[in-house]
Amino acid sequence: MTDDYAALEREFAVFVRRARAASQRLSHGVHPGLDASAYGLLVRLRDQGPRRPSDVAEDLGVGKATITRQLKPLEALGLIERLPDPADGRAHLVALTEEGRRRMLQARAARSQRLRARLGAWPREDVHTLATLLARFNTITMD
Amino acid sequence: MTDDYAALEREFAVFVRRARAASQRLSHGVHPGLDASAYGLLVRLRDQGPRRPSDVAEDLGVGKATITRQLKPLEALGLIERLPDPADGRAHLVALTEEGRRRMLQARAARSQRLRARLGAWPREDVHTLATLLARFNTITMD
Repeated sequence: MTDDYAALEREFAVFVRRARAASQRLSHGVHPGLDASAYGLLVRLRDQGPRRPSDVAEDLGVGKATITRQLKPLEALGLIERLPDPADGRAHLVALTEEGRRRMLQARAARSQRLRARLGAWPREDVHTLATLLARFNTITMD
Repeated sequence: MTDDYAALEREFAVFVRRARAASQRLSHGVHPGLDASAYGLLVRLRDQGPRRPSDVAEDLGVGKATITRQLKPLEALGLIERLPDPADGRAHLVALTEEGRRRMLQARAARSQRLRARLGAWPREDVHTLATLLARFNTITMD
């Protein structure tokens, strides 16, 4: 039974590695030209509203050059836009556009479909059990 | 019952967000001065052996400036070392050191301890069930 812990640790690690590929697919669902970082960036702008690029970079723990490179395609695709910074005439903010919001919803719906398709062969009870146990785990790891 | 899918999707998202914090703790376990990217970088060097920094950057989908910034503290701490590149006298490879390997094992052991401590109050059967269902999920999502 001690091995159950080791097995769980291993499956968590596999899951996290797969999750990276999933976030790539999620970004591609927004637009095929985007890389894995795009979706998380859009989520942040959606949840936090218009922000300075330097603040977004700080939140994500990346450098200025990286955030500039990541924001560029999002702006070129019309998913985010620049707004003047009311607090500083020389600075600007970046914000999610309506088009960005629409495409995020689309990408999320596609992800839900993929998840449901993959779980199609599962007994509903197992889906319920996995969701319940994972919810309990997520709560206890809150520290 | 349809809501079980939505619940599972939500719990997966929470888990992945928490996993980011966990990889930060894992990196700190190697050395308190390291950021979240460090552990993954060390895993890569351990699994793939000595590599050119530019190849590591390409694998991870990051730029040259980023990989240089991420490798620097690992070298300063003696966790990785530079080796001459036998294929190109002007280039160098980076490789995990014995000290790096030792500290990775330490950090992993600490992570196992944290996981076991958190699951301490769980019935063993639930740990087993979660590991089993997650293993099944990890297998079907292989695409």
